[in-house]
Amino acid sequence: MMRFDTAESLSAALRDLPPPDPAAIEAAAARQAELTKPAGSLGRLETIALFLAGWQGNPRPALDKGRAVIFAGNHGVTQHGVSAFPADVTAQMVANFENGGAAINQLARHAGLELRIVALDLDRPTADFTRASAMTEAECLDALAQGAAVVDPGLDLLVVGEMGIGNSTSAAALCARSFGGDPRDWVGPGTGLDADGQARKIAVVERALVTHAGAPHDAFETLRRLGGREIAAIAGAVLAARHRRVPVMLDGFIACAALAPLVAQAPGIVDHCLAGHCSAEPGHARLLERFGLDPLLRLDMRLGEGSGAAVAVSIVRAALAAHSGMATFAEAQVARRL
Amino acid sequence: MMRFDTAESLSAALRDLPPPDPAAIEAAAARQAELTKPAGSLGRLETIALFLAGWQGNPRPALDKGRAVIFAGNHGVTQHGVSAFPADVTAQMVANFENGGAAINQLARHAGLELRIVALDLDRPTADFTRASAMTEAECLDALAQGAAVVDPGLDLLVVGEMGIGNSTSAAALCARSFGGDPRDWVGPGTGLDADGQARKIAVVERALVTHAGAPHDAFETLRRLGGREIAAIAGAVLAARHRRVPVMLDGFIACAALAPLVAQAPGIVDHCLAGHCSAEPGHARLLERFGLDPLLRLDMRLGEGSGAAVAVSIVRAALAAHSGMATFAEAQVARRL
Repeated sequence: MMRFDTAESLSAALRDLPPPDPAAIEAAAARQAELTKPAGSLGRLETIALFLAGWQGNPRPALDKGRAVIFAGNHGVTQHGVSAFPADVTAQMVANFENGGAAINQLARHAGLELRIVALDLDRPTADFTRASAMTEAECLDALAQGAAVVDPGLDLLVVGEMGIGNSTSAAALCARSFGGDPRDWVGPGTGLDADGQARKIAVVERALVTHAGAPHDAFETLRRLGGREIAAIAGAVLAARHRRVPVMLDGFIACAALAPLVAQAPGIVDHCLAGHCSAEPGHARLLERFGLDPLLRLDMRLGEGSGAAVAVSIVRAALAAHSGMATFAEAQVARRL
Repeated sequence: MMRFDTAESLSAALRDLPPPDPAAIEAAAARQAELTKPAGSLGRLETIALFLAGWQGNPRPALDKGRAVIFAGNHGVTQHGVSAFPADVTAQMVANFENGGAAINQLARHAGLELRIVALDLDRPTADFTRASAMTEAECLDALAQGAAVVDPGLDLLVVGEMGIGNSTSAAALCARSFGGDPRDWVGPGTGLDADGQARKIAVVERALVTHAGAPHDAFETLRRLGGREIAAIAGAVLAARHRRVPVMLDGFIACAALAPLVAQAPGIVDHCLAGHCSAEPGHARLLERFGLDPLLRLDMRLGEGSGAAVAVSIVRAALAAHSGMATFAEAQVARRL
């Protein structure tokens, strides 16, 4: 298994990314062609079934072992007033997750997903990245490894989500450094900032980009300097999932921004990912376009916690139910087209 | 309960449509405001919960008794070569539904819906509506009544779907007569017609509009002249659901076209309906715009059978899980915004 023990580990893991299994895709497509429906009439339900067949290496893919993991971290940058909520809310929400009271508890149960919460050193916020690197090399490697550790072999699907007051500022900085563009393109209201708050957030991102302008632009340095522990953990989890051929359902702006530095270095890293939804946070649509992913849902959600991804898992279950349960034309004695 | 015993019954049922319960909506909104999430951050999941609260008259709406009903009918207009499949497929697919082999069987089970199949006189296709009325008054009233009969009091949600080779031609004619516009705007490939087939289909719709141009334009006459039995049954079911305040999840182009004559006469008739999805059939987006409904899903589905609506029911379940299961800020001791 992949190890994150040196600063070069991430770049090494981004090389030689495994592809899906073409034989499983072909066999699944052959089955689709025999099912009692006009060809293509189930639309994305059909392509989702083929996608899962390829990554699971199984022409009749399953969703028995689905896991949602919510990573939580705290951010030094909150001292600049970039969130509508106080930083204490990260730990309070982790307790809420553990007590079963948050949105993701209900949505993961509804989606039939096991839910794990991984709180990363909440009492040690990252450094203020307008002045220093958010994490040391060791801290970032540890977060990547904690993310990778949640991916057991044989998982059918992984959902990754996050909680961290201030982390939409980190996400905007990661996107701007990875893909360029005006910081305004990547900054939004997050949990509900007003216009003044958003102006502060834009200024913070601009300052951070200047502070780190001279540093190397590889994925690890960008993650370490501008990310957060929960963000690096998501990157580690998605990368570990790829090497174990576990398909991933992505959540919103922040969970996707965790992958922005990886995509900038190795665009194919999200080939095993479905975009669960497009968030109301304005940078998300732009980011998904960069990833080349078409979101399954557009429900104006903007909560994080893996909530949009968990809702989208129902679409995957519907796709697999149709793919595996339908009769063929021959079995049902239904005539094919004229 | 509503009765369909005279040609005036439909117009009578379209008057005095009951509204949702404002007190239940207000109480549900008050609960939403206390739940542990930034206000509005669950997007449409929140508005769906309020919608169901209003129609069920319950601030904590439920989805224990959800029913999907698939109406099937045959169409005389198939003699003009307007479908990619032979007309026998309607009955063959009804048998497939009854044997559990179709897409809707898998999708209704996945959505936790009871599935009923109502086959309407399959051995008596409607008349060819390019030359005569598709149905007599008595036939149309009977179909409306059979639709209304599936709506038991106390249903939490109704899904309506259809099966009927040739019925996308009927649907296009209903839309063109109800809302005007070029027949080309409403005709699409259906189950998979090629360009020649679509040209025939357009010509058939044009001829039908001329044949019936002088007839009254009320909902009943339009349904009777250009509809089909399964289409009139859907209209009857949706209308009965309204009078029993049962919320409805609409399916694709044909299921929605069944309501086009009703919407033209009484636009508020779809206020108790959610649009489950936007079909790949090109007329559907235009029709939903006329209805003022924003579809929950856009998955390029175009199968009918209630399939898109059944997939969308999962979104409703997610909305209700969050609405009913989440902790409040006070219960979870989570701080509100700064």
